[in-house]
Amino acid sequence: MIDYEAFLSHAAAHMQESGIRKISAVGQRSPDLVPLAAGFPDPETFAWDAFREIAASILSGQDPSALQYGQTRGYAPLVAALVDIMAGRGVTTTPAELLVTTGSQQGLDLVARVLIDPGDVVLVELPSYTGGISAFRNAGAAMVGVRQEADGVDLADLDRVVRQERAAGRRVRFLYVVPNFQNPTGLLIGLRKRQQLLEWAGRENVLIVEDDPYGALFFPDAAAEADTRPIKADDREGRVVYLSSFSKTLAPGFRVAWVVAPDPLASHFEIAKQAIDICAGGLDQRMVYQAWKDGVLASRLPMLRAHYQAKRSAMEEALRREFGDQVTWQTPRGGFFVWAELPVPIDTDALIQRAVRHGVAYVTGSAFFVEGAGSGRWARLSFSFPPVDRIREGIRRLAAAVREEQAEAPAAAAAGAARV
Amino acid sequence: MIDYEAFLSHAAAHMQESGIRKISAVGQRSPDLVPLAAGFPDPETFAWDAFREIAASILSGQDPSALQYGQTRGYAPLVAALVDIMAGRGVTTTPAELLVTTGSQQGLDLVARVLIDPGDVVLVELPSYTGGISAFRNAGAAMVGVRQEADGVDLADLDRVVRQERAAGRRVRFLYVVPNFQNPTGLLIGLRKRQQLLEWAGRENVLIVEDDPYGALFFPDAAAEADTRPIKADDREGRVVYLSSFSKTLAPGFRVAWVVAPDPLASHFEIAKQAIDICAGGLDQRMVYQAWKDGVLASRLPMLRAHYQAKRSAMEEALRREFGDQVTWQTPRGGFFVWAELPVPIDTDALIQRAVRHGVAYVTGSAFFVEGAGSGRWARLSFSFPPVDRIREGIRRLAAAVREEQAEAPAAAAAGAARV
Repeated sequence: MIDYEAFLSHAAAHMQESGIRKISAVGQRSPDLVPLAAGFPDPETFAWDAFREIAASILSGQDPSALQYGQTRGYAPLVAALVDIMAGRGVTTTPAELLVTTGSQQGLDLVARVLIDPGDVVLVELPSYTGGISAFRNAGAAMVGVRQEADGVDLADLDRVVRQERAAGRRVRFLYVVPNFQNPTGLLIGLRKRQQLLEWAGRENVLIVEDDPYGALFFPDAAAEADTRPIKADDREGRVVYLSSFSKTLAPGFRVAWVVAPDPLASHFEIAKQAIDICAGGLDQRMVYQAWKDGVLASRLPMLRAHYQAKRSAMEEALRREFGDQVTWQTPRGGFFVWAELPVPIDTDALIQRAVRHGVAYVTGSAFFVEGAGSGRWARLSFSFPPVDRIREGIRRLAAAVREEQAEAPAAAAAGAARV
Repeated sequence: MIDYEAFLSHAAAHMQESGIRKISAVGQRSPDLVPLAAGFPDPETFAWDAFREIAASILSGQDPSALQYGQTRGYAPLVAALVDIMAGRGVTTTPAELLVTTGSQQGLDLVARVLIDPGDVVLVELPSYTGGISAFRNAGAAMVGVRQEADGVDLADLDRVVRQERAAGRRVRFLYVVPNFQNPTGLLIGLRKRQQLLEWAGRENVLIVEDDPYGALFFPDAAAEADTRPIKADDREGRVVYLSSFSKTLAPGFRVAWVVAPDPLASHFEIAKQAIDICAGGLDQRMVYQAWKDGVLASRLPMLRAHYQAKRSAMEEALRREFGDQVTWQTPRGGFFVWAELPVPIDTDALIQRAVRHGVAYVTGSAFFVEGAGSGRWARLSFSFPPVDRIREGIRRLAAAVREEQAEAPAAAAAGAARV
């Protein structure tokens, strides 16, 4: 028998399986399970008819380069379109600062490989997106959490953490933030706080990696486009690497996203990408480009906002109905997630098996914390994917699982209550 | 001004731009240039009509998962199809050993990240494929070349190199080979040599990474399917990581390829891929799967073999006509490339600018050598992409550039001739 462990790189030996992917896999094996775990967009919202027409035109054979290897930077008309899309978000940019990526996860991986040496410190929100955490950790980053307050990153904690890490002789590379409807908390960083983060980055000579997959999906009953203005829009010094994606607005199956970065960094991302996957898919990039050009993207955004807003409201109503005031959360003003704190003595890591038996899946809060696990009572509940009636059924099942757990652990409950 | 160099990882600071991509970019700026550089498949061979029909069916909306995030391992029916495809190549495998990758370059990158720690030795053929070299070097590998003889890797040199590297205290991880119609030499490793390499790997306790993008494209006038039997087919011990792709047989724009690896390694590739790009494209994977299922792939292989064989013959005829016996090469028995040695005193690195002025591009031999640059007279000439009349025109232009170079450097020529 070959000892394959002996062949693994240090990085591979320490990579962790994605918590989200693991629990999503459970869902795929049980068709009746209500999937409140994975943050999938709703395929009901996909522009199937438009995509079918666009594909027929791309595959006419008129443009033989459509299925050829493409430029590593991306399909040139799409790159030009991204300059336009960014202008709509208040960001002035040029093709030299842009790179099309094979999904935003690749953007995170490029950031990791180009900016991180093993042992370097990456600052992340507590909690933060698991995909970012994994990409940075796989490059050997020391992940350090920063507390969040109502309007985002706690600046005092940020200063404290930087001092602490530098005193320990470590190099702080960048702060990773998801400012718009964060995954998992749904939190929106305030506009003033965004300015303060930029000033902080300049003062401390670090970079900011701004991950913005959800900005276009604000909910009109609670937020406006102006609230989602990227940090990058005011980045006159060139401190911000900005990532966004078509996965939530058009479809994730296309694997088309993008990075905007200062020109010298964009060049390094390009060189790294050459040896990673050469280029993003030619058909996919043209599908997305044409959907943008034909106005499919722009015309659908109001529908998407209303659609996900209604699903959020359905989940909130179900939570109130099933749990009363036993469960607490901040109303999401956009995005895909409710970040819920379950009642004492529930530990969401312990509860998940029972929840799955009851036919509902969520992502345990611990998956999003780089240190500690918060209170252990957090669950990320995605309202984006299931139909409204399934969201209601999922929350009903979750409540049943919680009641059963509470009934079986009265002693623990009492002890937990005493601790509070 | 921000000093971005100070923010680069050690790896990023040392990454090199792809020589092939650089020269290909030159081509895109000059429409009259004959592109003998990039190894693009011929879009004339793409199954446009079939793809258009398949896309219409996938995008009907009947299967809402078609544009959703997918399994990291790959679209399950495609994975099952790959078991079948591998059986056709003499390799018995299972889904647990398979992973769909976003192009074969991602397979190389996964191998690099899962198997290489900085300083580890990777053995490569002299010369070897630049995409493999880049992926391994970016992970910090010490690249060490092994000489090739007519039937592939020189076993005596392989033993010598392994002894030398181990004596220097370095860990030898794997040998990277492209056994079928190698990029760049077009060389086919002999069947007996393949067995010997497997025995060597077992004896030395190292792995073999077998990269096989061209195996299906043998030329009936010079090779048979049996000659392309993968090393993996006889890998009873689990020493071989095998990579292949649909890029050369269906189209590279789909970015769909695959890895077959011993189960424990395949699991690590999967975990790494989760944080690299989550999954390959959903539409792309279904396009490729359906093209396989409908027999589009199988029915086109004879046409593809004849098509590229004819182009190879056209290039050889043009080389003989334009250069007489001044240029030498081994007749390619499959694949996309003629590996040509130009006459003294030509240095292909020095010649490239003049060649581009004459309206033809090739890849300089030095791009494929991890140490030294061979004789400096090598050029990789791709016959896969341009139409036959353009191949002839390209070789004519190359001959003109060579004659001009020879005329301008008669002294150097004499000196060179004296050395020979």
